[in-house]
Amino acid sequence: MLTQKVKKQLENIVGKENVEDSQAAKLVYSYDATPQFQSLPDAIVSPRNTEEVSKIVKLCNDHNIPIVPRGSGTNLCAGTCPIEGGIVLLFKHMNNIIEIDEDNLTVTVQPGVITLDLIQEVEKKGLFYPPDPSSMKISTIGGNLNENSGGLRGLKYGVTRDYVLGLEVVLPNGHIIRTGGKLAKDVAGYDLTRLFIGSEGTLGIITEATLKLVPMPETKKTMLALYQDLEAAARSVSKIIANRIIPTTLEFLDQPTLEVVEDFTKIGLPTNVKAVLLIEQDGNKEQVDRDLDKIQKICLEESAISVQIAQTEEEANELRTARRSALSALARLKPTTILEDATVPRSEIAKMVKAIEEIANQYNVRICTFGHAGDGNLHPTCLTDVRDQEEMERVEKAFEAIFQKAIELGGTITGEHGVGAMKAPYLHLKLGESGILAMKQIKQAFDPNHIMNPGKVFAKSERKRVVVTS
Amino acid sequence: MLTQKVKKQLENIVGKENVEDSQAAKLVYSYDATPQFQSLPDAIVSPRNTEEVSKIVKLCNDHNIPIVPRGSGTNLCAGTCPIEGGIVLLFKHMNNIIEIDEDNLTVTVQPGVITLDLIQEVEKKGLFYPPDPSSMKISTIGGNLNENSGGLRGLKYGVTRDYVLGLEVVLPNGHIIRTGGKLAKDVAGYDLTRLFIGSEGTLGIITEATLKLVPMPETKKTMLALYQDLEAAARSVSKIIANRIIPTTLEFLDQPTLEVVEDFTKIGLPTNVKAVLLIEQDGNKEQVDRDLDKIQKICLEESAISVQIAQTEEEANELRTARRSALSALARLKPTTILEDATVPRSEIAKMVKAIEEIANQYNVRICTFGHAGDGNLHPTCLTDVRDQEEMERVEKAFEAIFQKAIELGGTITGEHGVGAMKAPYLHLKLGESGILAMKQIKQAFDPNHIMNPGKVFAKSERKRVVVTS
Repeated sequence: MLTQKVKKQLENIVGKENVEDSQAAKLVYSYDATPQFQSLPDAIVSPRNTEEVSKIVKLCNDHNIPIVPRGSGTNLCAGTCPIEGGIVLLFKHMNNIIEIDEDNLTVTVQPGVITLDLIQEVEKKGLFYPPDPSSMKISTIGGNLNENSGGLRGLKYGVTRDYVLGLEVVLPNGHIIRTGGKLAKDVAGYDLTRLFIGSEGTLGIITEATLKLVPMPETKKTMLALYQDLEAAARSVSKIIANRIIPTTLEFLDQPTLEVVEDFTKIGLPTNVKAVLLIEQDGNKEQVDRDLDKIQKICLEESAISVQIAQTEEEANELRTARRSALSALARLKPTTILEDATVPRSEIAKMVKAIEEIANQYNVRICTFGHAGDGNLHPTCLTDVRDQEEMERVEKAFEAIFQKAIELGGTITGEHGVGAMKAPYLHLKLGESGILAMKQIKQAFDPNHIMNPGKVFAKSERKRVVVTS
Repeated sequence: MLTQKVKKQLENIVGKENVEDSQAAKLVYSYDATPQFQSLPDAIVSPRNTEEVSKIVKLCNDHNIPIVPRGSGTNLCAGTCPIEGGIVLLFKHMNNIIEIDEDNLTVTVQPGVITLDLIQEVEKKGLFYPPDPSSMKISTIGGNLNENSGGLRGLKYGVTRDYVLGLEVVLPNGHIIRTGGKLAKDVAGYDLTRLFIGSEGTLGIITEATLKLVPMPETKKTMLALYQDLEAAARSVSKIIANRIIPTTLEFLDQPTLEVVEDFTKIGLPTNVKAVLLIEQDGNKEQVDRDLDKIQKICLEESAISVQIAQTEEEANELRTARRSALSALARLKPTTILEDATVPRSEIAKMVKAIEEIANQYNVRICTFGHAGDGNLHPTCLTDVRDQEEMERVEKAFEAIFQKAIELGGTITGEHGVGAMKAPYLHLKLGESGILAMKQIKQAFDPNHIMNPGKVFAKSERKRVVVTS
């Protein structure tokens, strides 16, 4: 609990209007997009600049008060649920695009900038920021950095990590450090930049980032390949890449997902096929045309029943938007939607899709599968109801089997959603006890009082999807 | 010093033939490519597999014996000079390409593989491993990983770090961990992969790496632009990039460098111009042709006196080889060659080139400048003689001024060579005391006995280019 004295000190730092602790405010920030995790913070604090963040961190460190940095709370790993109370740190005042540098092809931003706003601003200058998580309309760059967010363009362009040149970070001891810079090459010391990316706020607070931009591709084309056989679709994915073609986007949607997405978006998606691949390529016109020809051929060889190229940008955009709305569409069907992101090597996609089907049958749960097939990053999504305790236990077991299978195929428990509180009990499957120990040593070195987003990444128990309240 | 007992234990681990401690062997491994650093190790140990590395590390940790992992010793930061004695760890037995995975576009290697061998092996399969340090004919992948090596293709393709998907690492406590995998996306825990890359053997021993490959570009073209004005060349670099063209390679050589390189290679390089840019672009034919047209136009607008496109692959290869031989060529002129890698944002290249000229004049030292201009990564190279103490002091001051200037322009003290022992006294210029403290916390957490490549990265004193013997 926050004492009145500490609350006063927080108000002195950020101004009275930037410390909220009404019951309503605490409820709003008690959960994020992850089902089954809820816990009230003690207060919500909105700093106006880095110096204020530093003062807040020092104060919290002195009083052992947890700090949970939060963007828009769209993460799916309970990464921003304040499970040990403390303060939620909001960046609503630190939401500026500080500079777009057209000579160095960089953009410098504060954490509160909305991802899509950033993308659109740099596109006005003919520049391109590729990372595009499905939540980009509302997610913030700060959240993307803390979770190392992926997206639909990850196959060709990589993830958030690949676009960060430098950071300003407030460490748990209150020190403000700067890593990297507007530099294509920099090996001065350990790679602290990438250590903070994806560390989910457990090592420090990112207060500014310099991101790499690339020239806007000349053109882009979108196509849809339809299949009556899940595995044929998955095989096409592997074959495209083995043929040395790296499309921008290579998304997979199974029939149940297609049905609900079509019902939600009404754009005329086929619902009578077992699976579709949504494929995009960008680059110069000649290359895009050649790649699309080759991809079409591969898909037909692998028994696609039809391959259609979007004829207009409007049509292409509808397809992309439909794919991005998969989670929202699925969430309408049942009270609880659990979307995971077990990831395997690309070559194992067909095996993984099959295994997910079998596991769903084995535990008698409903799992729809879609996702970034080209990355081996699938989103098996379970439609369930938390009030049905018996079913929830089967859901839990089914996901555990899915994670196990992913590891068995050389994969990982999380491709882009992060560990947070949700996946912490499974992390040892991927890293082993020695890997987790190495991480704990870093955590302990930086944050000996465990004030930075406690209860995340490192599991305290075997507790999984259980509601926590404080 | 190694006791006879410990030597025996090492022999028991790796076999008698893999522990050398003759005076000749110790001399061979007492220095690397960095002038002015030399120190004898106590023994040279060549493990045959990861388990042996783990046993060696445990033994050394128990007895506080320094371990210096070493590839071919081509680094320029005294990163592999055993300045506190101990054992040099050689990977001559761990030099296999374990697997080229054509479905997942990955290659898995042991640290002792020669960089160029790897590049050539994957090219046979139509695949491409872009990082190409100038030393690639003899450098090892293990060395590249530990130093996060750059190269001539870094502008478009990035550096070693950008191609590492997973590592096997022996930690100072002897634990063997695996990070990442054949995975395009993986956010399970902290980014240990990138923490080890560029950590110069101070945090653990890399024993295996899975690297990302990309499809081989369809075609490649090389051109040479000649200038009578250094700054015009530098301005061309900035303007090409500001025009949204990212060439594969954008190298700069000044007149003194041109002269010695031509003298060394005899391929008919112009020596009567002030500077040249060596520019390469790869990709599909149409794009390469279009980019080269645009680049040619920009160079001519910026007063290039001529722009020539290599007519054959042989001619192009001669130009690249000439550039790669710059260090060897320069090294023939004077007894001591000191090559640095201060790096600035691309937009500041013209200012930096000018500043280097002024600093060389101010301290009356001979500095030739060449390097990866497109990355802002220059190699000011001083030709001197260590026996001339008075000149060496001026050289030291000149480089300090160059580092200061790079920082002032938003740059860094090292773009691709690493910190090692050589740059450790300057690291605070880039990171500040808080940044160095954060790094020290990690080092202390992983390696409390400071056995891993001690004396590197972290400065013990202000000692710079001074010969050390033990």
